[in-house]
Amino acid sequence: MRRALAAAIDGSALRDYPDRGQADLREAIAQHHGVDAASVLPGNGAAELFTWAARDAAAVGVSLLPTPGFSDYVRSLKCWDGALLPLPLPLSWGDVWPQSFPETALSGHGSDCLWITNPHNPTGQLWDLKSLTRLLPRYALVICDEAFLPLVPGGEAQSMIPLLQDYPNLVVIRSLTKLFAVAGLRLGYAVASSQRLQRWAAWRDPWAVNGLALAAGVAVMRDRSGLQRWTQRVHDWVQHELPWLRAQLDDLPGLKSYPSSANYLLVEAKHSLMALREGVARRGVLLRDCRSFEGLGECWLRIGLQTRANNRRIIHALRQELDHQPLV
Amino acid sequence: MRRALAAAIDGSALRDYPDRGQADLREAIAQHHGVDAASVLPGNGAAELFTWAARDAAAVGVSLLPTPGFSDYVRSLKCWDGALLPLPLPLSWGDVWPQSFPETALSGHGSDCLWITNPHNPTGQLWDLKSLTRLLPRYALVICDEAFLPLVPGGEAQSMIPLLQDYPNLVVIRSLTKLFAVAGLRLGYAVASSQRLQRWAAWRDPWAVNGLALAAGVAVMRDRSGLQRWTQRVHDWVQHELPWLRAQLDDLPGLKSYPSSANYLLVEAKHSLMALREGVARRGVLLRDCRSFEGLGECWLRIGLQTRANNRRIIHALRQELDHQPLV
Repeated sequence: MRRALAAAIDGSALRDYPDRGQADLREAIAQHHGVDAASVLPGNGAAELFTWAARDAAAVGVSLLPTPGFSDYVRSLKCWDGALLPLPLPLSWGDVWPQSFPETALSGHGSDCLWITNPHNPTGQLWDLKSLTRLLPRYALVICDEAFLPLVPGGEAQSMIPLLQDYPNLVVIRSLTKLFAVAGLRLGYAVASSQRLQRWAAWRDPWAVNGLALAAGVAVMRDRSGLQRWTQRVHDWVQHELPWLRAQLDDLPGLKSYPSSANYLLVEAKHSLMALREGVARRGVLLRDCRSFEGLGECWLRIGLQTRANNRRIIHALRQELDHQPLV
Repeated sequence: MRRALAAAIDGSALRDYPDRGQADLREAIAQHHGVDAASVLPGNGAAELFTWAARDAAAVGVSLLPTPGFSDYVRSLKCWDGALLPLPLPLSWGDVWPQSFPETALSGHGSDCLWITNPHNPTGQLWDLKSLTRLLPRYALVICDEAFLPLVPGGEAQSMIPLLQDYPNLVVIRSLTKLFAVAGLRLGYAVASSQRLQRWAAWRDPWAVNGLALAAGVAVMRDRSGLQRWTQRVHDWVQHELPWLRAQLDDLPGLKSYPSSANYLLVEAKHSLMALREGVARRGVLLRDCRSFEGLGECWLRIGLQTRANNRRIIHALRQELDHQPLV
């Protein structure tokens, strides 16, 4: 990807308008998933695609949002005055979280569109495909955000993408920047019916994805064996670091970590963690608090996996700060 | 810019999420124009900003669009089911085109929002600021696209940006990619009231401008003397190449070029130019036809200025092709 970007900034990918049809990238992504190129629409990050998905969601009616969840779904629905209802996920101290999507979603609660995040953000739950499949006939529209799925060992087996051929009411949204840790590049894509994606493409401007992101995306998606090797490395990293970090965190007084399938995990305490977070920030470690996740709050942190050396730095800073200011 | 991009792809601008507040770039652009940073909103190219400007336009009522004009205004209005009316620009064979915006716009024609392009695209007319100023009290909203203005020698004197302090109904949209010939980067900005821009920013996703474009934009806008020298080089190029290319084009049998202030010019013939265009394309020179500009058609081409060597190639290909197939 770096080689492709270096070539791009010296060449036509920087100078010329990006291909309006995004043909090369659509084709490379389509081959990866075994779908038609017309069923793929690249976007300026997954978040840009949520904007257009939310337009469809608002048009069909009320959206049901698993809570706590990613705040950008709410932003995108607000853009279209879309109505929404929370679907509270059962989270409580000490629980082992389920991997089956809540059965309460089967009733619909008077909603028309269901938003799914798989694995869920911020809990890291990997929803079981069978529990997701039975939801499809219940909703006019199902939007499944699989932004983190490629990072999950065994995750692809739970992808909803193979269901698209039978369910035109399904939209799957993916990110290419999480697997490669290039959030600054902005590159995601939707997989959905070609009619739906043609509509989205007509709404937005013709050059939504910049030329550098197109070039980088084509380079990594065309190199199938390279992509496979890289994905395996990411899976090995998650499988090694996640249990190690959880064990270390659970060893700290007053903190509890939750099982996760993804490259992040939730940490809870019985008291506010905001002073602890500020303390470790002064030690050079910035942890994400969960105040932006509806339903969580000051007692929660979401920690993203790092290299072993940096995971050690996180644990070290937390331990030092907890010695200094124990959780009461 | 290339140095900034090379540094960006090796560092945090690629790895991290772009700054949601776009603080550095807003500040650098604000200083360039002598406005508040809160009055500046960078976008994923000017076209992304047209989408949000059009939402405001559709909300105030009917849009008046000078015709022929840039087709993306129509796309963005359609996104919001915005009503529109054409304001035909008087163009006919042999005319010298006016530099004063058509007085017919003063009546409004029952419209509420006026879209201005300065210099106009595709005609290259540089509208006189005085003729634009008197339009502001007549419309609920005026959107002025100054994408090409920084390339026009003396162009900044006609910018509407200084009027923003007196007219909250004015929006000015600029591109940073035309001056630097980096269309693939996607980078534009709006200058308007801070309340309006806060609204736009809440509608769209939080990372609309990718990290590489932010880094490149900050680098070129902060280097004030470098920007001044580069702009002068661009102006010198336009002042040298435009009259040369016009003289060469007018020397070709059956073609007429029109006066332009910008880095492009319109060429007209009494007959269709599509066969000629195909002929020169076979000779390796791709010229832009004008079928996407409402009101123009097969008898028109828009030619963008190149280096002298490439301008010679254009003339050479046209001359050879006209020898081969004269315009009848």
